[in-house]
Amino acid sequence: MTLLSLAQANLIADKALEKAESLDFQPQTVAVLDAGGHIKVIKRSDGASLLRPEIAFGKAWGVLGMGFGGRDLAKRAEQAPAFFTALNAISNGRMVPVAGGVLIKDAQNEIIGSVGVSGDTSDNDEICAVAGVVAAGLVADTGA
Amino acid sequence: MTLLSLAQANLIADKALEKAESLDFQPQTVAVLDAGGHIKVIKRSDGASLLRPEIAFGKAWGVLGMGFGGRDLAKRAEQAPAFFTALNAISNGRMVPVAGGVLIKDAQNEIIGSVGVSGDTSDNDEICAVAGVVAAGLVADTGA
Amino acid sequence: MTLLSLAQANLIADKALEKAESLDFQPQTVAVLDAGGHIKVIKRSDGASLLRPEIAFGKAWGVLGMGFGGRDLAKRAEQAPAFFTALNAISNGRMVPVAGGVLIKDAQNEIIGSVGVSGDTSDNDEICAVAGVVAAGLVADTGA
Amino acid sequence: MTLLSLAQANLIADKALEKAESLDFQPQTVAVLDAGGHIKVIKRSDGASLLRPEIAFGKAWGVLGMGFGGRDLAKRAEQAPAFFTALNAISNGRMVPVAGGVLIKDAQNEIIGSVGVSGDTSDNDEICAVAGVVAAGLVADTGA
Repeated sequence: MTLLSLAQANLIADKALEKAESLDFQPQTVAVLDAGGHIKVIKRSDGASLLRPEIAFGKAWGVLGMGFGGRDLAKRAEQAPAFFTALNAISNGRMVPVAGGVLIKDAQNEIIGSVGVSGDTSDNDEICAVAGVVAAGLVADTGA
Repeated sequence: MTLLSLAQANLIADKALEKAESLDFQPQTVAVLDAGGHIKVIKRSDGASLLRPEIAFGKAWGVLGMGFGGRDLAKRAEQAPAFFTALNAISNGRMVPVAGGVLIKDAQNEIIGSVGVSGDTSDNDEICAVAGVVAAGLVADTGA
Repeated sequence: MTLLSLAQANLIADKALEKAESLDFQPQTVAVLDAGGHIKVIKRSDGASLLRPEIAFGKAWGVLGMGFGGRDLAKRAEQAPAFFTALNAISNGRMVPVAGGVLIKDAQNEIIGSVGVSGDTSDNDEICAVAGVVAAGLVADTGA
Repeated sequence: MTLLSLAQANLIADKALEKAESLDFQPQTVAVLDAGGHIKVIKRSDGASLLRPEIAFGKAWGVLGMGFGGRDLAKRAEQAPAFFTALNAISNGRMVPVAGGVLIKDAQNEIIGSVGVSGDTSDNDEICAVAGVVAAGLVADTGA
């Protein structure tokens, strides 16, 4: 199994933020985690609000926690609210089941980490997350 | 009262995982608890996502916490969401009220433990949980 | 990097418990974690007290959290009590800095997981943990 | 008041990690916070253990929480252990009172953020933290 390196994680974060800037999105925050759900990189843009790092982390952690992309998690959360309330509790609040959380896979389709972006609409957050992963030559699984 | 032994709990876990493999289910995680709600065995299959041990534990703990099988808990959670939100809090996040949490009973119909399975759909998780309990010569109460 | 498989983790747990039985130790509990600190296997022997799964987990998690074996952690905790009080808090109580927590390394000396054993004295717990890792053909780093 | 920018925080983190590499230190993790105690940047080096982001964050948060550099905090923690145990609790485990947590000040001597480094000895961690702050043309207050 490939390990996500700091160099790759850093590239993903930078490219996600560049994408946001080029599209004139709200100030974004990016969290990139390894396969074990531990932080490799977090970056919070100037002007981003206080809870953004936790939201970005929770989007990234949630997709690893369940093994589905954020878009899929969001749909499931709508269909099974009681289950997702329970997930919030048992994960100690590390689950944010919305678009903008994306699994990072290698060429063998193995999960090697995840990225979460928060700051603009979920759809726009996801655009940035995907741009980062793709720029690093990796596969982005949004759960779409 | 019969005590659930480690040998029995281990057998339940192994048979639940075998069932999952024979039916080509997603990678499963199994938690088997004694009547006091304490872990006897947890096993997480290769490829299972990060939160699965907590979910499997929460399914198993929840049925002991309330004394109903997971299928019954799920129905009640739908009818009384505020109550189950409170249960999440007072149980310190140990309640996952969904199918796949099964009470383990002995021949005298006494609860001697529980099993929770997570990884595939709730219905499939329950199939594995029941298979494990039955293989150990015990009675599975799903709350159906 | 090698991933610790369920088969390996299960073997480690079983061999640790066999060792305990062969030496007539108190009822043992074993937790085996992957490199990300997530449960692969937990087994609690008949007669083991209630908190043993959490202690075994905390011994195993602590060595991964800091990257040192439990024997080394214990020495450091004695020398820097304020730091370890802080570690307890920031790890949400997942650190148990005592002998009996052992890093699992592969032939390339990379950390692929950890094992924690609790139930007898720390020294005896460690004997069981090491026996399990060695029986699986892997390298045990006790921090000695 | 000057606000610590993402560009500055990123530079601090990169220069701290470069310093660590140039001195052949253990794999380091750096957290840079703004004056409000919120993450601007976290970077965890390849091979760093699991709890390092939380420790680096706690070192950085602690110096802001109390307004003293980490070296000063460590001395106070030794003299008043019960007080620091209380601080751990009331800060929700965000205090790590050790060297390696450094206040970032501007030319007017105002606190504009903090940096925490974890991975090697506290003394070496501090060397990296200071190197990062100085490289960004800012003032490092270690509490010495």
